[in-house]
Amino acid sequence: MPTVLELASSRRSVRSFEERSVDLGDIIYALETARQAPSGANRQPWRFVVVTDSETKRRVREICEEVEREFHGKAPGWMKEWFRKRGIDWRKPFLEEAPALIFVFGRRTEPYWVQSVWIAVGYMLLALEERGLATVTYTPSKVGWANQLLGVPEEYVLQTILPVGYAKGAPSKPPRLPLKEIAFRERWGQPLAPG
Amino acid sequence: MPTVLELASSRRSVRSFEERSVDLGDIIYALETARQAPSGANRQPWRFVVVTDSETKRRVREICEEVEREFHGKAPGWMKEWFRKRGIDWRKPFLEEAPALIFVFGRRTEPYWVQSVWIAVGYMLLALEERGLATVTYTPSKVGWANQLLGVPEEYVLQTILPVGYAKGAPSKPPRLPLKEIAFRERWGQPLAPG
Repeated sequence: MPTVLELASSRRSVRSFEERSVDLGDIIYALETARQAPSGANRQPWRFVVVTDSETKRRVREICEEVEREFHGKAPGWMKEWFRKRGIDWRKPFLEEAPALIFVFGRRTEPYWVQSVWIAVGYMLLALEERGLATVTYTPSKVGWANQLLGVPEEYVLQTILPVGYAKGAPSKPPRLPLKEIAFRERWGQPLAPG
Repeated sequence: MPTVLELASSRRSVRSFEERSVDLGDIIYALETARQAPSGANRQPWRFVVVTDSETKRRVREICEEVEREFHGKAPGWMKEWFRKRGIDWRKPFLEEAPALIFVFGRRTEPYWVQSVWIAVGYMLLALEERGLATVTYTPSKVGWANQLLGVPEEYVLQTILPVGYAKGAPSKPPRLPLKEIAFRERWGQPLAPG
């Protein structure tokens, strides 16, 4: 079994998927992992809807491309540059191509609900990587439509969609800042380790 | 090596620590894991300050107990009941007893900064568990003081403090909802797996 650091290091955000389907057991494995996450007052504010139906995925892509087209038009310059470099635009074919979409909702009435849900998302990313599955945390710039489309009660807010499948091609991993620029000892700016 | 699900399952939130110190290498391991997390536009909005100095820890405890005393007085009834059942009150001795405190900050000017930071926190929880270390995501109800105490620029906001050490005693894990209550297929309310 790889270590947590190895899984975190090998994992890449993937936006292009092979056609072959994923084993529902692997998705359940990731959800079981998420289920174990800690949460504010153990309120477990996460809910998941796994979508594999082609017609629903087609509709999700359609809606997301519409909201993204608007968003990309208004994004700040630096973000447009990032999108361009990563080859990201308003088109979201992966929402239709990925064999499964995991919709992640958070119950907005619970304490630390956003934080708790995203711990669980972090857990899922590593669990999927362990099973050889790829994903990306894709959060559309508008989210209310998802409640209607999937029949989700209004107190739950879509936090992200994880398209899940096998990576097509070998996506690069954007570089990370060196540890010494992000971690300090005792006070901001002081080196973490001696020497 | 345990699997991700095994680590997630064995992990408990720990609020009481043995005196023995932790290896800085294990903390660096957790930070290296966090460093690999994905983030909005790869902006890596996380920053960490590792505190082991006794005098700083004492001061942190003092400040947190002051803000928590106020918060606990005003908490809603159901939350007071949760605190009582878990033996949690305004006292935070673990902030002084844990050999190390990892302060986690997020840069509030970045896209999806809260979400990104908490993915990284999820990664760290599993990395610490893998190294046999215990922690809890403790977020004081006021956070601005941490910038002043640790010299952190004001655009970074304290997201949580992870006290890190070896668990004292064997804390229980509060029960989780069954998977069928939190995960559905195609639409809210439909069973995830057949049968």
